[in-house]
Amino acid sequence: MNLEIEQVDMETEAPIVILNRNDAEDLGANPLDRVQISDNGQKIVGIVDITDELVEEGKLGVTDRLSYLEGEVELLLASRPESVKHIKEKLDDEELEKEDLEEIVKDINENRLNDVEMGAYVTGIYTNGLSLQETQHLTEAMTDIGDVIEWEDDILADKHSIGGVAGNRVTPIVVPIVAAAGIKIPKTSSRAITSPAGTADTMEVFADVDFSIEEIKELVEETNGCMVWGGSVNLSPVDDKIIRAEHPLSLDPEGQVIASVLSKKKSAGSTHSVIDIPYGEGSKVDNLSDARDLAKKFKRVGDHIDMEIECTITTGGEPIGRGIGPVMEARDVLQVLEGNGPEDLKLKSLRLVDIIFEMAGVEEEARDILESGEALEKFREIIEAQNGDPDIDTEDLELGEHRETVKAGRDGFVTHISNEMISDIARRAGAPKDLKAGIDLHRKVGAEVEEEEELFTVYAEREDKLEEAIELAEDTEAVRLRGKEASFVERV
Amino acid sequence: MNLEIEQVDMETEAPIVILNRNDAEDLGANPLDRVQISDNGQKIVGIVDITDELVEEGKLGVTDRLSYLEGEVELLLASRPESVKHIKEKLDDEELEKEDLEEIVKDINENRLNDVEMGAYVTGIYTNGLSLQETQHLTEAMTDIGDVIEWEDDILADKHSIGGVAGNRVTPIVVPIVAAAGIKIPKTSSRAITSPAGTADTMEVFADVDFSIEEIKELVEETNGCMVWGGSVNLSPVDDKIIRAEHPLSLDPEGQVIASVLSKKKSAGSTHSVIDIPYGEGSKVDNLSDARDLAKKFKRVGDHIDMEIECTITTGGEPIGRGIGPVMEARDVLQVLEGNGPEDLKLKSLRLVDIIFEMAGVEEEARDILESGEALEKFREIIEAQNGDPDIDTEDLELGEHRETVKAGRDGFVTHISNEMISDIARRAGAPKDLKAGIDLHRKVGAEVEEEEELFTVYAEREDKLEEAIELAEDTEAVRLRGKEASFVERV
Repeated sequence: MNLEIEQVDMETEAPIVILNRNDAEDLGANPLDRVQISDNGQKIVGIVDITDELVEEGKLGVTDRLSYLEGEVELLLASRPESVKHIKEKLDDEELEKEDLEEIVKDINENRLNDVEMGAYVTGIYTNGLSLQETQHLTEAMTDIGDVIEWEDDILADKHSIGGVAGNRVTPIVVPIVAAAGIKIPKTSSRAITSPAGTADTMEVFADVDFSIEEIKELVEETNGCMVWGGSVNLSPVDDKIIRAEHPLSLDPEGQVIASVLSKKKSAGSTHSVIDIPYGEGSKVDNLSDARDLAKKFKRVGDHIDMEIECTITTGGEPIGRGIGPVMEARDVLQVLEGNGPEDLKLKSLRLVDIIFEMAGVEEEARDILESGEALEKFREIIEAQNGDPDIDTEDLELGEHRETVKAGRDGFVTHISNEMISDIARRAGAPKDLKAGIDLHRKVGAEVEEEEELFTVYAEREDKLEEAIELAEDTEAVRLRGKEASFVERV
Repeated sequence: MNLEIEQVDMETEAPIVILNRNDAEDLGANPLDRVQISDNGQKIVGIVDITDELVEEGKLGVTDRLSYLEGEVELLLASRPESVKHIKEKLDDEELEKEDLEEIVKDINENRLNDVEMGAYVTGIYTNGLSLQETQHLTEAMTDIGDVIEWEDDILADKHSIGGVAGNRVTPIVVPIVAAAGIKIPKTSSRAITSPAGTADTMEVFADVDFSIEEIKELVEETNGCMVWGGSVNLSPVDDKIIRAEHPLSLDPEGQVIASVLSKKKSAGSTHSVIDIPYGEGSKVDNLSDARDLAKKFKRVGDHIDMEIECTITTGGEPIGRGIGPVMEARDVLQVLEGNGPEDLKLKSLRLVDIIFEMAGVEEEARDILESGEALEKFREIIEAQNGDPDIDTEDLELGEHRETVKAGRDGFVTHISNEMISDIARRAGAPKDLKAGIDLHRKVGAEVEEEEELFTVYAEREDKLEEAIELAEDTEAVRLRGKEASFVERV
């Protein structure tokens, strides 16, 4: 069937093409089917959407992703891609071969799978799991589909946290200490998807984070370290597309987590990496034994792809540090580098660096580099290289002008602080879009509090967002208190 | 957040709303998230799409499904619906409660689940299955969400085939025989999705098929039977939405099949139903033991919802009848009613009717009603009631003017005819859109053929479609021959 291209001003993730219902019936195409578009010998795959009016008969509507098409094209119903067959095999609990996983990664990368198929891929891996061998092959396939940064050095350090813990902003403390010890650490980080701040969002308070691979290499040659946004480079690019499909059901299948993390590391050229696995109520891993199991798998897949991996299992049952939200977390980071700041954030960072030092054969102590001020100096050097103000200090980190403090409704001990609820409240307050919005925690788990004592303050840039956040805070028990004498909570 | 509605001329299955990226970030909304739209006290759920240009800041683009909105609305990020939690539970292999399944069915009906979630629902049920009790609850939930036809009679018959067999057009033979015996049989059928003809497509060759529930009642009061398109009435409406998500991966999870079929029957008011379960190479059920197992489950769920079910297990390894495609199949049907026609189609239809007669306590023989001409007379009566031409005969059923015959490449026996490949060829030829396109099978399994003997003829309304179909036919072995002497196929 020959159709004339018509541009439709729509942005879509997938290469959607819009057919008039009559043409679709002629072609035998149903919504979500794929068609093969032949344009001067080039063959492109489109995913079918059907309309009665938007596109008339004889025309083929194309969205922005295919906007380079013009004139007349030939259309054929395409057969289902091989990768869909392999997804079905995974649903049938079959072991996938290296080539099968490569097909899947390739088709995801080219947006050839529709959302139903993406949902099936993620749930198939979630319900039937990936064997160690499948995980290794998936890691390699995800690495190979994107760019790779080449380094001449023998040791390229990296750290990663599997996430889920609010305020866990150790990267901007770890990177300068490691870099100050003469070890290269080119760190890429993500922006927030469902959290109030990603490391890239927090770093943006200090400096630019958007750099090309060439610029990253220059930054690291100059200062030994960088802290940039991973989204600006094409390292393991299918990861983001998979995350998009994991998001609606909050699925985080283990094998996929390992492949996603390690393919990013491998692409960045890391040779030695420490991975932080927080566990406990409200974090991604339920219990200590699952955390140990995950750590072992990370190490074994690391072996396979020639990367040295150490894991640290940490408690993930409450936020780390005091601040939640880009500017708040930036303040915690700067305070730690200045020798103050939240003790838990400092100790966790030092522990991670010590593991990197041990792996890299560095004789120095992380604490010495921090306490001598070398880390702060290196941090300012990196900020400057990333076009930030190297003289920034905590006074410059202004918080949102609208604020309200949540107080204890009774005497008691803090027994739990929910990462999820604290994050939700901070997001309602405007984080991460509003950099100055967020939460300042005044009490952590274990603290003894009296009625009316301040638990946390919510900051926002806009009054209406503050109100929404406070409304949510009053509705949920983000900070859980236990009475001093009994387990009695309240009479309803 | 308050936004002004802007109409976007796009047809979408789901209630898609399009947000400018800045507003989406302000709201903290990711693609596929849900928002709650408040419009004069009414609360509507939308699924988020994000744009940089199509919709400017401060506006909310709404597609046709929400085109009734206008002016300013208030937008809130909606929490994930409960049903998504239940889908996740199913992925974790938990047993779902009655209320959980009701939530899922309700949200599917209201298009509140995005495609990733629909994919997860279908794959979750596919990988972890549904227990008998879950299947019963799902059947009831699917029935209750739609309309129900109420009848005063004690016996309302019905038949159903779980499908997958090309040319299996028994309904237009079964219905008139049953109706002629004085038993009411209000039959709703589907149109083709991936096949070259659904029963509704074939019936459309003879008469109208688009009727309301009231009209269906009138038709059945008048003639005892009808053969209409199920899509024109709101019986078990979520079925079509689930089929859409099953289609990309060709998933047909057993529990869902049972719930879908029986909810349609129950909604139509059936009390006695015979279900045809074809099995064998290329059909939906692999082997006899799976077919028996499925039959038992149909009967047990039937018991639960107070419907008498008998199942017939049939061979599904090759097409039934000679014709494939709307007009071809109409010709087979009319020939059988006239006392000729393909023997397999006739015998299968008679067997199904005999089971219905046994269930309904009818003393007559199906064959007598067919051979006496009473069935043909009743068929013409029903056609007339459905605004068709009661005097139609096989001469009037013109086939496509472009035709080409595929011949045997060697001497041998026909050992297999692939339902799937025959269907694909017929679809390439234009069926079901082109009513006169399709295939006429000259030989069936078991036939002895000589080289150059005619195997099947492809008919098309358009030359280019005929060529495409023949190209596919030459590329695939739709009719498989085995040599007379040895298992040797060909030397390559």
